Parts: sequence; structure tokens; C-alpha cells
Amino acid sequence: MRGRRLLADADVVVADRLAPRELLAELPEDVEVIDASKIPYGRQMAQEAINRALIEHAEAGKFVVRLKGGDPYVFGRGGEELLACAEAGVPVTVVPGISSSISVPETAGIPVTHRGLTQEFTVVSGHVGPDDPRSVTNWQAVAGMSGTLVLLMAVDKIGAIAAKLVEHGRPADTPVAVVQEGTTAAQRRVDATLGTVAAVVEAEGVKPPAVIVVGDVVNVLAAAFQR
Amino acid sequence: MRGRRLLADADVVVADRLAPRELLAELPEDVEVIDASKIPYGRQMAQEAINRALIEHAEAGKFVVRLKGGDPYVFGRGGEELLACAEAGVPVTVVPGISSSISVPETAGIPVTHRGLTQEFTVVSGHVGPDDPRSVTNWQAVAGMSGTLVLLMAVDKIGAIAAKLVEHGRPADTPVAVVQEGTTAAQRRVDATLGTVAAVVEAEGVKPPAVIVVGDVVNVLAAAFQR
Repeated sequence: MRGRRLLADADVVVADRLAPRELLAELPEDVEVIDASKIPYGRQMAQEAINRALIEHAEAGKFVVRLKGGDPYVFGRGGEELLACAEAGVPVTVVPGISSSISVPETAGIPVTHRGLTQEFTVVSGHVGPDDPRSVTNWQAVAGMSGTLVLLMAVDKIGAIAAKLVEHGRPADTPVAVVQEGTTAAQRRVDATLGTVAAVVEAEGVKPPAVIVVGDVVNVLAAAFQR
Repeated sequence: MRGRRLLADADVVVADRLAPRELLAELPEDVEVIDASKIPYGRQMAQEAINRALIEHAEAGKFVVRLKGGDPYVFGRGGEELLACAEAGVPVTVVPGISSSISVPETAGIPVTHRGLTQEFTVVSGHVGPDDPRSVTNWQAVAGMSGTLVLLMAVDKIGAIAAKLVEHGRPADTPVAVVQEGTTAAQRRVDATLGTVAAVVEAEGVKPPAVIVVGDVVNVLAAAFQR
């Protein structure tokens, strides 16, 4: 609600590819919309250039809205943009969003926690694979967690990630659900296990963006959806 | 937005204590509001009674809105209520919410992830302490995680939890922030470390509800707020 109110006041909107772009159609014609689409396809605009656009328009007296999908602090680089603006003396208000890490499983019938089943959930970016030297994730610890594991940006690396989890003790029959383009009209859910997920993702032609959920919560609501 | 639209159509609203109750004041007078406040203080209403209220009003032909704070699937018992309704043949639509696990740190200036610092975050309920036989959390694995740790419902158990994390290898000087009544006018943030947090929480008289954040993200935006 607050985000929408602020958007209605915008002079300039800097929008990501995965932002709720249908909202842009509601804006008055004199609002300048800057496309910050970056990855994995579409027009390129480096983070540096985005920061500069935010600052320059703010310094020109414009009310600038940075429109992102999900929550700006969940792998959204919101902190980096805030620091760049603060460095330039531009005041920023951050509006929390609905993170795909929770809402996409939810929309596919999966609760990230469920009483009696798990008291925790972990959200990990799969953008950098487990054997990449840039990875700072302790996959042995992740494998040892008893709760739900939610993987974002992990379609390309799911084979290596699933193998690593099984290597460190997660049972190969642990349920996995892959939810492609969640919360959109094109949403689809593909089910597998840690042992089969890499083959299933390939066979089904699953493409990013997708959210992958690992754990018993995957099937806990099945009874509700079989009716 | 979607939640608010559905709320406007409600005949009956079953509202939690931590729900956005200011929205109730906007409802027409003929909407029946049922207070489901449960813990840790206020009127008691068992989960069984809540489920029954949802089902009975739905079966009487009413449009029932179950109003919760945060996201219904993050320690919200949303899955249990969905299953009870499904069992009774009552159709349910679930609307994702903004989880306090992400939004409360955010509002206190803490991003749960930050590039170059962490590629993951873990959300754990502290409702059941680490030495409680009902705990299903592997605290050794939690301690071994390299990312951000967000503890919900953990004020009462923070001493035992912090000690357990340090026992399993997390440095005692790991930054900790405790955010009480986050996103409300009464919000306050208290800073500490794993080694000092129990004493600080007691000295400052921190009371639930609070969200506790453990990790380097606690200080990563400090530069932006010191200007």
C-alpha cells in the first residue's frame, strides 16, 4: 500500500525487469520510466549506472522511485543503492516488499514453515554454485539444517547444489518443488527429490526465474489440494 | 493490495493480536470482527476454536477473512488453518504478506542479505529453546552457517541461544541487533554481540514482540545512518 502511494508521487521511476511492471501503465504520461533490466536477458545497465541515475535525478529535484520485485534487501542490492545515495547526501525511504522466497512457495501451495514439521527456514542464493571460489555459503552446514531450504536463482546450479546436499547427508529422497515464474499467469510447479531434481529440471525444460523448495513442507498441504 | 481488497468484501474478520488492526476501524459496522488474540497476553482462543469459527461462518455463507500479521506461512499456522478448512470442504485463498523476519530488520536499517557479505539468511523460531526436547532445530548447523540469522519469538530464550551458537563456533563478538515492536511507532533497536546480548536485553528491559538479527549485516548500512 505504501509503495503504491509513493509510486503515485513519482517524477522518475527506475524499474527492474522483475518489478511489478503492470503498475507502470497506471502512471501519468509525464513520469519518466528508466528500465534497469539487467540479467539474465534484456537491456544492460550496470549497478553503477543505476546508482548514478537515482542520484542525478534526485539532485535535480525529482521524486525518484526505485521499483523492484520482491523485497529490496533479499538479494536485491537495496543496501548498495542506499549506501550510494547516502554517500551523495540523497535521503532514502525503504519500503519492505513481499519476498518471492516466501510468496512463490506459498502461491504454489507450500508453507515455508509448518508446526510440528519445522521451526526454521533458510534462503540461499544459487547464483554462485557450491564449488565456485566466490561462494561464501557453508553447504555442509546447510545440509545439516533440519528446516526448509529455499533456493533462489538456482536453476542453472541445481544439479551441483543437490549433489552437495546429498553428499553432506541430506537424504536423496528429500522432497523438492521447483516453481517457475511464480505468482504470474505462467506459473508452473514441478516436483522431484534431491536425487532426481537435476534430471527433472532438464527434462521439463525449467527456465529461470524459479524458486526451489527443499524439505518436507513441499507435501504438507497436498491433502488440501487433492480435494 | 489484494489483502485489502478482500478485507473490504468481508462479512466476518478473524483477527490476530499482531495483525494490522488499524484496518479494522475502516470496516463497515455490520462486519463481525472476532478477536483471535492468543499469546503471549490478551484473550485466549485455542487454534481449534479459531478453525471452527472460520469453518462455521463460511458454512453459513459468510465471506470470512482471516487477518494475520506478517506472512501466514512464517510461524503463522496458516497451513494448519488451510488444512482444517480443506477438510471441511471450505475453499481458501491465501494472500502472501510482508514477513517481519525481513521487514523488521529492514525498518531498523538492516538488510538480511548484502552482496559481498552473505548469500543467505536463516529464520528460526526461538519459541522453543535449544535444550528443549521439542526443539527440532540443529543449532550446531545453525552456528556453522555463514549467513544472517534472524530469530523470531526469541527474547525469552536469547541467552541460551546465544550461548549455544558461541559453543558451536560463532564468534562471541558477532554483531547482534534486537528490534522491539518493529514497524510500529514504539519501535526501538538495541545493539549488542552474541557475548553480551543476554545481559543487554535484560538491562534494557526488552520485551516481546522483537526480532533479533545476528551477523555482519547488522552494521553494514551504519554509514548511511550516521550522516
